[in-house]
Amino acid sequence: MYELLNNITSPEDLKKLKIEELNKLAQEIREALFNRLSKHGGHFGPNFGMVEATIALHYVFNSPKDKIVFDVSHQTYPHKMLTGRKDSYIYEEHFEDISGYTNPEESRHDLFNVGHTSTSISLASGLAKARDLKGDNDNIIAVIGDGSLSGGEALEGLNFASELNTNFIIIVNDNDMSIAENHGGLYKNLKELRDSNGKCQCNLFKAMGLDYVYLNEGNNIEKLIDTFTMVRDISHPIVVHINTQKGKGYKFAEEDKENWHYCMPFDIKTGKPLSSFDGEDYGSLTCDYLLNKMKNDQKVVAVVAGVPTNIGFTEDKRKIAGKQFVDVGIAEEHAVAMVSGIAKNGCKPVFATHSSFIQRTFDQMSQDLCINKNPATILINTASVFAMNDVTHLGIYDIALISNIPNMVYLAPTSKEEYFAMLDWSIEQNKYPVAIRIPCNGVISDNRKVDSDYSNINKYKIEENGSKVAIIALGDFYQLGEEISKSIKENCNIIPTLINPRYISGIDEELLDKLTENHDIVITLEDGILSGGFGEKIASYYGSRNIKVKNYGLKKEFPDRFIATELLKENGISVEQITKDVIDILNI
Amino acid sequence: MYELLNNITSPEDLKKLKIEELNKLAQEIREALFNRLSKHGGHFGPNFGMVEATIALHYVFNSPKDKIVFDVSHQTYPHKMLTGRKDSYIYEEHFEDISGYTNPEESRHDLFNVGHTSTSISLASGLAKARDLKGDNDNIIAVIGDGSLSGGEALEGLNFASELNTNFIIIVNDNDMSIAENHGGLYKNLKELRDSNGKCQCNLFKAMGLDYVYLNEGNNIEKLIDTFTMVRDISHPIVVHINTQKGKGYKFAEEDKENWHYCMPFDIKTGKPLSSFDGEDYGSLTCDYLLNKMKNDQKVVAVVAGVPTNIGFTEDKRKIAGKQFVDVGIAEEHAVAMVSGIAKNGCKPVFATHSSFIQRTFDQMSQDLCINKNPATILINTASVFAMNDVTHLGIYDIALISNIPNMVYLAPTSKEEYFAMLDWSIEQNKYPVAIRIPCNGVISDNRKVDSDYSNINKYKIEENGSKVAIIALGDFYQLGEEISKSIKENCNIIPTLINPRYISGIDEELLDKLTENHDIVITLEDGILSGGFGEKIASYYGSRNIKVKNYGLKKEFPDRFIATELLKENGISVEQITKDVIDILNI
Repeated sequence: MYELLNNITSPEDLKKLKIEELNKLAQEIREALFNRLSKHGGHFGPNFGMVEATIALHYVFNSPKDKIVFDVSHQTYPHKMLTGRKDSYIYEEHFEDISGYTNPEESRHDLFNVGHTSTSISLASGLAKARDLKGDNDNIIAVIGDGSLSGGEALEGLNFASELNTNFIIIVNDNDMSIAENHGGLYKNLKELRDSNGKCQCNLFKAMGLDYVYLNEGNNIEKLIDTFTMVRDISHPIVVHINTQKGKGYKFAEEDKENWHYCMPFDIKTGKPLSSFDGEDYGSLTCDYLLNKMKNDQKVVAVVAGVPTNIGFTEDKRKIAGKQFVDVGIAEEHAVAMVSGIAKNGCKPVFATHSSFIQRTFDQMSQDLCINKNPATILINTASVFAMNDVTHLGIYDIALISNIPNMVYLAPTSKEEYFAMLDWSIEQNKYPVAIRIPCNGVISDNRKVDSDYSNINKYKIEENGSKVAIIALGDFYQLGEEISKSIKENCNIIPTLINPRYISGIDEELLDKLTENHDIVITLEDGILSGGFGEKIASYYGSRNIKVKNYGLKKEFPDRFIATELLKENGISVEQITKDVIDILNI
Repeated sequence: MYELLNNITSPEDLKKLKIEELNKLAQEIREALFNRLSKHGGHFGPNFGMVEATIALHYVFNSPKDKIVFDVSHQTYPHKMLTGRKDSYIYEEHFEDISGYTNPEESRHDLFNVGHTSTSISLASGLAKARDLKGDNDNIIAVIGDGSLSGGEALEGLNFASELNTNFIIIVNDNDMSIAENHGGLYKNLKELRDSNGKCQCNLFKAMGLDYVYLNEGNNIEKLIDTFTMVRDISHPIVVHINTQKGKGYKFAEEDKENWHYCMPFDIKTGKPLSSFDGEDYGSLTCDYLLNKMKNDQKVVAVVAGVPTNIGFTEDKRKIAGKQFVDVGIAEEHAVAMVSGIAKNGCKPVFATHSSFIQRTFDQMSQDLCINKNPATILINTASVFAMNDVTHLGIYDIALISNIPNMVYLAPTSKEEYFAMLDWSIEQNKYPVAIRIPCNGVISDNRKVDSDYSNINKYKIEENGSKVAIIALGDFYQLGEEISKSIKENCNIIPTLINPRYISGIDEELLDKLTENHDIVITLEDGILSGGFGEKIASYYGSRNIKVKNYGLKKEFPDRFIATELLKENGISVEQITKDVIDILNI
């Protein structure tokens, strides 16, 4: 079945094939992609579109001497197959051997761990600069998708590239799609370039000072080989703009590019997912809430940066929202600055993105938004040890990132009702920049009463009054706090005080002072790294007082493809361990 | 002397002047600029170049109904003069009434506190979006310099702008300079545009989907008025590219644009500064060190992002460094990713920037650099309460920003010898991404022995052994620690232990454990905000132990134009106060 692919252990083996065999190999690579993706899930469209170009790249260039850097690297499954990792696509027992991204620990052919967009040109320009300083002569190739081009880092890299004045090949893999449709004026230019077979006079890449060549048949191996051969060993920076088809080779994916960007395990015949989730999720709940809010208030506007469905804005819902929905494309920095401007001019913007992607915007949150105290709302999702577990997409760093910015009010709801109460308050108030950390432990609806007004900043809420032990359980670790409280009751004959702090970005000094009267120990729980986070602030506040503090959270590291419950246990976070710690510290 | 200017209290007064009077007004504005800048210092070149364009803007548009957002806003002195703040340029006793940047607290004509580059298009696009949601009809104008265009946020904004499909005017103030010369391919295109009077076919702005108009005489008031009048109330986004002369009206500034970007008080006749500093500074010391290092090692390369002289790379020294020096232009994100690539490919990059500007790169430090553990060196300067005191340029947030990123080794030298030992170690090692916080309390050379090897990560150094009180004094607060130690000796009859922690990004658990044996209190000192910082980690570590901790640092806020020693006092940081606190806590 994998007659040719089975014999490829490195790009050297690929080079032995005849040109006509390469098309058969492409077919086998697609079969292997189907095999893995239909059973395991993963990035679909990007990989099906890049099969031919990847074969051509490894046919023409000599990796790892020549160095190829893939942007985002969610399109590198064919690359992995050709560089010694085919078994992880062919054999189910090897599926877990590899990550979904390039990974230097897997192969010398992978230069960087990459998972965020728009980085390949800059990373590769560094390789090129070092090559030149050392006097080496390998080719440096950056591969970047059209969707990634709107990101500031990519545009900075593109602008800088021409200054290299040396071999540097930027392959723009243009499939006319981001995750959803592209956004921004440059995509009009890419279309003009495609429509004119690369000949139109006004050319973004040339305007950035770069040489340029266009190939319309971006899924034609022979023509790709010809084009890459032409630019191999070139003495100056050049953009090779290739027009590929996202999802090529699978009808459903070719026709519905957005939904087939990424797939869960599916039936190849029907394209239907093997399992479905029909419970509530915060994405669609948030979208429905916002659509309703928009209907009643023209000033409400939702903003996303290339990931519209992260708050449920599927294509049909984007249409309903109309001008009250803005996808800025992959441009998180722009998004944060823009919502600051929207809020400044009297409207009510809500920008939503992943915990991992908000990292792009520290400076914009600080300078554009918080110094100016404009009342925009930012929703942070997948912010949890239970969210994504790829090292490049972790949601465990945002507490330290966001909560230390002055003027920012960072809220941690503990239930569905509290989340929507906070969101509604945030949209309607006009004093503070607010970020809200959407819970990741399922949509929990309990009977606790929630406040509707959060303008008494940093006022924590005592959910259960007790003594000796106080548990300050932040956000979606509140339910863990409940379990610990129960365990302490059962094991220590103590009724602990259980506190929902609600505000990540500040401490309730009055409440903390009060706790010292009849508590010996305060424990804090947070769903993220401890370093720079929430609990440390409590420890610092109590530093010279007669009360003990124990902070629970993750240690500062980059874990990769972990099991969340195991990682928590390694960090001492379990009901049993924490109960035991309390017993030890109280010496009972 | 200020016949016309004296009668202008708002743009309404400007509109009453005849066109021919406006040129006289321009002259008076320059006189007022000379008056303030020669006595007070400030941004010179940007303001002298924008006099005519600012007059024309306020003549044609109706601020504050029409909204003008200035990028960086270091070119807004003429704008301030025309919007009710002329006295702060004319009368020395009013110099301190205003900031050097736009400031909504000063005037309704200022929309945002802005000090970082490349933000105006995104901020203004938010104003435009809100205007459209509300159904208003004012003009929204973003003013941006050519130097700022290379920043990712600006390019993201430029790309997005065309999607607004509504009134939006981007004025590109092109004076063919950044702070130093521009870098990147887009500047070739700007030159082509200038050389062809805006007519060349390949046009960056059109490639970004925008309409475009060019004016070569960017210091000609009449032509500026004609051009702005033409685009006023336009129904779609347009770029107005004007060619201005940086420093126009002062021979020295016209001829030496880089050195006259900013000035200290100077003699108008000679252009010479009124005072000079001839002591040592870390900028030129660092440059000399690096030049020497480069001479002996082709692999060493210095990288800056638009601010070359921040580590002493004046024009002559840039020439000496040759290809071992790279200015990427205003493009901090690119710079960090690029140095990761340089290090990955076996060379030894050192990227230097301001504490405030490194904020642009949290994601690049985390994803591009630290996940990949590439051994690049980042130098952070102006990182101190004693550095810049404009709210947009504070150097007090970088500890929380950088030290919570896994794998990053963030070092805090306490003397000249220690700084260069750390820098040398960092350049020569190949295991860690390293950042170094350059001291801001002068170049202090004392007799303490410093280590040459810092690979024993997080090993603190006991500089003086004592008991009862331990002082952990970070970086350039080490000398404060010495003073406090002395005061405690004198006032409490205690010899404290004095510790130089050296590593900001981790704690020395062994040493901290040992301290519990014969110490009752540990105090920490850090030159930055406490929130998310260094001391809180110590407090957390000791949380459930029998030792007290008191953290000293600044509270989380955005102070503006403060006096450092006063701000420190307000935060309880003085030798007297800390001595008193220690006495209170020890109850002696």
